[in-house]
Amino acid sequence: MRNNDLRLKLDFNYMMEDFLEEHGIKHQQVNEILHKIEHAQKNMELKRNEGSMDFRDLPYNQDEVVAEIISFAEAAKDRIENFVVLGIGGSALGPIAVQQAINHLYYNELSKEQRKGYPKLYVLDNIDPEKIASLLDIIDIEKTMFNVISKSGSTAETMSQLMILETMLIEKVGQDVAKDLIVFTTDKEKGNLIKISKEKGYKKFIIPASVGGRFSQLTPVGLLPAAMCGIDIKQMLAGAALMDEMCKEQDVYINPGYMYAILQYIAMKKGANMCVMMPYADSLKYMADWYAQIWAESISKKYNNQGEIVNAGQTPIKALGVTDQHSQVQLYTEGPFDKVIVLMQVEEFKHTLEIPKIYEKIDSIAFMGGHTQNELIRVEQIATEYALMKAGRMNMTITLPKVNEYTIGQLIYLFEVATAFMGELMEVNAFDQPGVEEGKNATYAMFNEPGYEDKREEIMGRAAKKEDYVI
Amino acid sequence: MRNNDLRLKLDFNYMMEDFLEEHGIKHQQVNEILHKIEHAQKNMELKRNEGSMDFRDLPYNQDEVVAEIISFAEAAKDRIENFVVLGIGGSALGPIAVQQAINHLYYNELSKEQRKGYPKLYVLDNIDPEKIASLLDIIDIEKTMFNVISKSGSTAETMSQLMILETMLIEKVGQDVAKDLIVFTTDKEKGNLIKISKEKGYKKFIIPASVGGRFSQLTPVGLLPAAMCGIDIKQMLAGAALMDEMCKEQDVYINPGYMYAILQYIAMKKGANMCVMMPYADSLKYMADWYAQIWAESISKKYNNQGEIVNAGQTPIKALGVTDQHSQVQLYTEGPFDKVIVLMQVEEFKHTLEIPKIYEKIDSIAFMGGHTQNELIRVEQIATEYALMKAGRMNMTITLPKVNEYTIGQLIYLFEVATAFMGELMEVNAFDQPGVEEGKNATYAMFNEPGYEDKREEIMGRAAKKEDYVI
Repeated sequence: MRNNDLRLKLDFNYMMEDFLEEHGIKHQQVNEILHKIEHAQKNMELKRNEGSMDFRDLPYNQDEVVAEIISFAEAAKDRIENFVVLGIGGSALGPIAVQQAINHLYYNELSKEQRKGYPKLYVLDNIDPEKIASLLDIIDIEKTMFNVISKSGSTAETMSQLMILETMLIEKVGQDVAKDLIVFTTDKEKGNLIKISKEKGYKKFIIPASVGGRFSQLTPVGLLPAAMCGIDIKQMLAGAALMDEMCKEQDVYINPGYMYAILQYIAMKKGANMCVMMPYADSLKYMADWYAQIWAESISKKYNNQGEIVNAGQTPIKALGVTDQHSQVQLYTEGPFDKVIVLMQVEEFKHTLEIPKIYEKIDSIAFMGGHTQNELIRVEQIATEYALMKAGRMNMTITLPKVNEYTIGQLIYLFEVATAFMGELMEVNAFDQPGVEEGKNATYAMFNEPGYEDKREEIMGRAAKKEDYVI
Repeated sequence: MRNNDLRLKLDFNYMMEDFLEEHGIKHQQVNEILHKIEHAQKNMELKRNEGSMDFRDLPYNQDEVVAEIISFAEAAKDRIENFVVLGIGGSALGPIAVQQAINHLYYNELSKEQRKGYPKLYVLDNIDPEKIASLLDIIDIEKTMFNVISKSGSTAETMSQLMILETMLIEKVGQDVAKDLIVFTTDKEKGNLIKISKEKGYKKFIIPASVGGRFSQLTPVGLLPAAMCGIDIKQMLAGAALMDEMCKEQDVYINPGYMYAILQYIAMKKGANMCVMMPYADSLKYMADWYAQIWAESISKKYNNQGEIVNAGQTPIKALGVTDQHSQVQLYTEGPFDKVIVLMQVEEFKHTLEIPKIYEKIDSIAFMGGHTQNELIRVEQIATEYALMKAGRMNMTITLPKVNEYTIGQLIYLFEVATAFMGELMEVNAFDQPGVEEGKNATYAMFNEPGYEDKREEIMGRAAKKEDYVI
């Protein structure tokens, strides 16, 4: 299985002192934290066994729901032109990233025939009123299915969208028809969407109780939108299973999930408070966004597991190669030594484009003639890796032999394991998000919710701004 | 003029110690660098007068070219269905940002009538072969105009795209028809596009000699794509002129461009090596990308003006409110004290959407019923500002009364002045990008260009990777 031609590779040469001298990581630094690494490994196994890391079972325990999703999608696709996800955070970024990776880069602008009969996909992941209003200008709501994704059913942004769009839909087509155009993805037992689903008869898919939003791409959260657009979700899960095998290795030097986290951990201690994710492929552009949410929200915590204030965290940054060579690489090579750059490369693109030899007499561009864009993007990526290394900047490269369901499944699972392991190394809880409560409470208070009177008073007092500080 | 209802506001209350205590900026810290500020102010004026900061004249000296662009666009629009920009870096991010800000959020999916007869806009800012191939699946190349943007005419990525697409176009329609479907934006005298334009008769627009790529949005680089999509470019320049007036103030406390840079400068010295740009509006999403390129490439330099190694720089980060409250705000409030967060808010959206009272009995969501999404997004933005402040995190807010050409012109110009002033405070050259040369040279070397033999040898020797470091 490990010799599979389609397996991902993690190349961390240019993280190491062998190439970067004092700016690189020493083997000694890995050895110094061996006790911590072993402790983290034990915790990973313990938590897996006791059922508090259930995302790791997703490649194996979903045969039934996968079959249900596929048959639902195949039955629904002829009735509809558009599939609209109402979700935010991981619930939106996962579906967007997978769609961009697997399907045509201008999927929504293809004809239905070119889309093989599958609907267009739109994701409403904000509450900007212009966004919903604009979407309604271009879709026929009668031919649209809305997929509301919220585990608790109390996500304000998503639920406000449901309230608006459900009302419009019922006005237009009546409750009976609307019933088959709304589908929920939510918790099995608790939460508002279960109540509404029972009352109104909306179809629902279940998010396993112990899998949180940002680890949910391989649950129905991500699988349903993918299947609705013709993506092979079984292959995604097969890819995740392969990566799970690789991430079971006890020797961390051959365990990509653990090694990724260990390198980031040591780099962070050396002052790299940022991690740039820079795929060299438009198809992987939004995988960087998805990574940014899982990495940021999971490992950035005020308190560690011992209750001490640590204000831990490493800031993920999205970039795109080669595009951002003309925007960010000046900073990456010459700015402060404060980041790790992770490049992603694709060995085989879906197309090959030759650059014709039409300007043979123009020195500075003639060299490209007769080569392909495939060569050009690859060479520029290697050149950037090299330039970063030469400037003493830590960087590593994840290689995808191709971009397809199987490799994307691996990639998602790799980052999930790496994130969970990073949480163990940092001794923080990778699965909660206490830092967003203050903002939520302030929102309730400003809407005059009962019980938030004190908070409202606090805000009005403390937040009162000075005119001198406004230009 | 300053009382104009449509002028931008910069609110920096939550940057200051008055609210943040030890985490905030003291007046004393501004006073301590007064000599530096005065020196920077003098340099800004000196450079403007001697003609080495010509982006500042763009609001005033373009009547002729603006008229030419508008008449070109109006004449061309009936002949074409698509306008495709071939450009990278600032040449791509500027046009994308302005299009997203001003036009419909799903502009390319509108009918030609809804687009008022203007063409669709596509920007090819990468050399991923899948991107061009995908675009060719959805456009009719005979009804497409290609706008090649490169000052030097030697930008490898852009020129390779030209070589591919020009060849295809000529094969399809012949040189005579192709002549009117290709337009260049380039330098007046030097560079390859001038040569090609003369030889083949392609129309060209000129980028002023002393305005670099990342400061070029208010030249034909940005003005032509905007006018092609029906955007009022005169109003954009009028907005820039208003901001220019505001940025002439000698008192930095009422000069938004200077004050923005001063606050970032002091914050950086306090350890904020990152700056998050987080608009609360989908229309402004790509203004954050445009900002990221001008800020990163301009102020991140290995050497200062005295030739000392400083490895200066602050990393810009793109975010989107409220979306990234579910992805990044956990990090911003609980992670390290290492960033400034700049929020952007819109006072009046183009649409108002009421949230119907359909779930009055469900406690956690009933509170939204009867309110609008406009209120919800505003309240969540203020709540986030407040939560950040309460957690001791420096943040400021830029307010746009509306998003239109006039306010977007102001915003672009504000960030251009702030960037130039930040360069003066940091004593680095904000207008060069020496750090990208190594990567370019490595690319030439790997393509076996004559003259790069030594570089090739160096790469092959130094870069040789170890198998042990690949999983």
